Amino acid sequence: MKNLLKKFANKDRNTLSRLITLVENHDPASLKILTQLHKDTGQTHIIGITGPPGAGKSSLINQLIKHIVDHKMTVAVLATDPSSPYTGGSILGDRIRMQEQASHENVYVRSLSTRGSRGGLSRATFDALKILDAFGFDFVILETVGVGQTEVDVMHFADTVILVLVPESGDDIQTMKAGIMEIADIFVINKSDRPGADTMKRNLLELKSPYKELFIYLTQALQGKGIESLWTEILKRKKSQKIDTENESLQRREELSQIILSELEKKLHQEKTNPFRSVYKDVQKGALNPYEGAVRILKKMEKN
Amino acid sequence: MKNLLKKFANKDRNTLSRLITLVENHDPASLKILTQLHKDTGQTHIIGITGPPGAGKSSLINQLIKHIVDHKMTVAVLATDPSSPYTGGSILGDRIRMQEQASHENVYVRSLSTRGSRGGLSRATFDALKILDAFGFDFVILETVGVGQTEVDVMHFADTVILVLVPESGDDIQTMKAGIMEIADIFVINKSDRPGADTMKRNLLELKSPYKELFIYLTQALQGKGIESLWTEILKRKKSQKIDTENESLQRREELSQIILSELEKKLHQEKTNPFRSVYKDVQKGALNPYEGAVRILKKMEKN
Repeated sequence: MKNLLKKFANKDRNTLSRLITLVENHDPASLKILTQLHKDTGQTHIIGITGPPGAGKSSLINQLIKHIVDHKMTVAVLATDPSSPYTGGSILGDRIRMQEQASHENVYVRSLSTRGSRGGLSRATFDALKILDAFGFDFVILETVGVGQTEVDVMHFADTVILVLVPESGDDIQTMKAGIMEIADIFVINKSDRPGADTMKRNLLELKSPYKELFIYLTQALQGKGIESLWTEILKRKKSQKIDTENESLQRREELSQIILSELEKKLHQEKTNPFRSVYKDVQKGALNPYEGAVRILKKMEKN
Repeated sequence: MKNLLKKFANKDRNTLSRLITLVENHDPASLKILTQLHKDTGQTHIIGITGPPGAGKSSLINQLIKHIVDHKMTVAVLATDPSSPYTGGSILGDRIRMQEQASHENVYVRSLSTRGSRGGLSRATFDALKILDAFGFDFVILETVGVGQTEVDVMHFADTVILVLVPESGDDIQTMKAGIMEIADIFVINKSDRPGADTMKRNLLELKSPYKELFIYLTQALQGKGIESLWTEILKRKKSQKIDTENESLQRREELSQIILSELEKKLHQEKTNPFRSVYKDVQKGALNPYEGAVRILKKMEKN
């Protein structure tokens, strides 16, 4: 592992990819590696990009990459793919379109998918962001497919959340999942040459919360129009990303809870690693019902 | 609490509603109540109904309720609403349409929404199902809005999962979340008088897994057409719902893990209830990084 970490510190891209694969597979070694890397994190600015399929997320990402590279900065694109065989096609398309910029040396593109446990993608994304942060990227662009609950969860990791819509997205907004509108920092109405862009903007302004400034940008990402002022806002946000001690300490608590819960979930799943296997046996044979078992285990935790 | 449980045993509907509100609010008392009620569970047949907005889930539910009532059986409808202000409208509409049957004494309709923690809705749904089961309903119809990850999680609680589509749902299937197609037991192509129903059926047949029989029903729920054979299948499934000891013991383990993880999540959230508060303090002040803190807490759990 020492060797891996040394190569990583020397900015070896293959090692970077290997480490991300470890967290993607929930490899037991990843906890140790992340413990080591954690001290180098906290510098990157994470831009979360979400929105309904077809809104033009990939084109927008392409444009942002151009601006980042023009400013001699580095960027990693992390795309999270819920692992359904039925979504394979559209994601592949997005990936290819992104290739235009992907070959630049300042750019690293990676997609993440996970099978298995609920919350698994969320945890893998969290860990992968830490790795990219420790590697030293100025920006990470975090892209999600769709606007479901997993996406909302994942977007909480971003410093700036951009929700990409199109003029016709009115109905989409109706069916969008809880929280996605609330956590967006910036709304982009893409393909704004189509009818309805201004109405869309007015509708968004009506949803404005009194507690939060509302940034709306009209773009035509494919043609590179309207990106400049969006980029200026992002750059401003990166620069003002001061270390807020109060907030940072809260965030560390939150991270700790995330890690404990997902590690415990893994451990509970296998008899060998399950720290409470005796209670589990009692529940399994019906001597305790699951709620009684839980009460007993929680009591054991109290006594630590 | 004794009084509440007595009223509950006497089939008091107000008490039923009160208990569900307790689990909806993640009230600390709910763990005790569920411990008591657990012995009376395991009889109900849970029908999960999911599918994209506009597919006609509510009409289908109305029809199923009719059949259940005609058979002198009882049914509870539990609708899970992710709590976004932006979806409020459509859900309200669904609720009203459901009222047609809701006044029958054999029918109980309830919607569940939760704020706050990730996985909160899933846990509240799980607990509410236990309560409805203990109350003695022959069927619970579990309805979800949309087809996101939360919905997939929730559908795992159902004995029979019905995915409702329309002839035009081809594109929806493309963007549907991981797992929803895999866990469906029955596909309903509703509004089957529209063009494309047969093509849709053929496409579904192509996705068939070799391990699982594929049930597809063409319906026009609003007109009550095609429901009879679907109902016969559901009834067959209820009758053959034998107690599979192997499976039941696995399910108990799974339930236990669910309860532990969500109870622990709540406890970790508040300093007063957090069983690992000393480690949290070290992480909060930066003496340990979150990964180091997690390793330490997991070691404490091992030593129980």
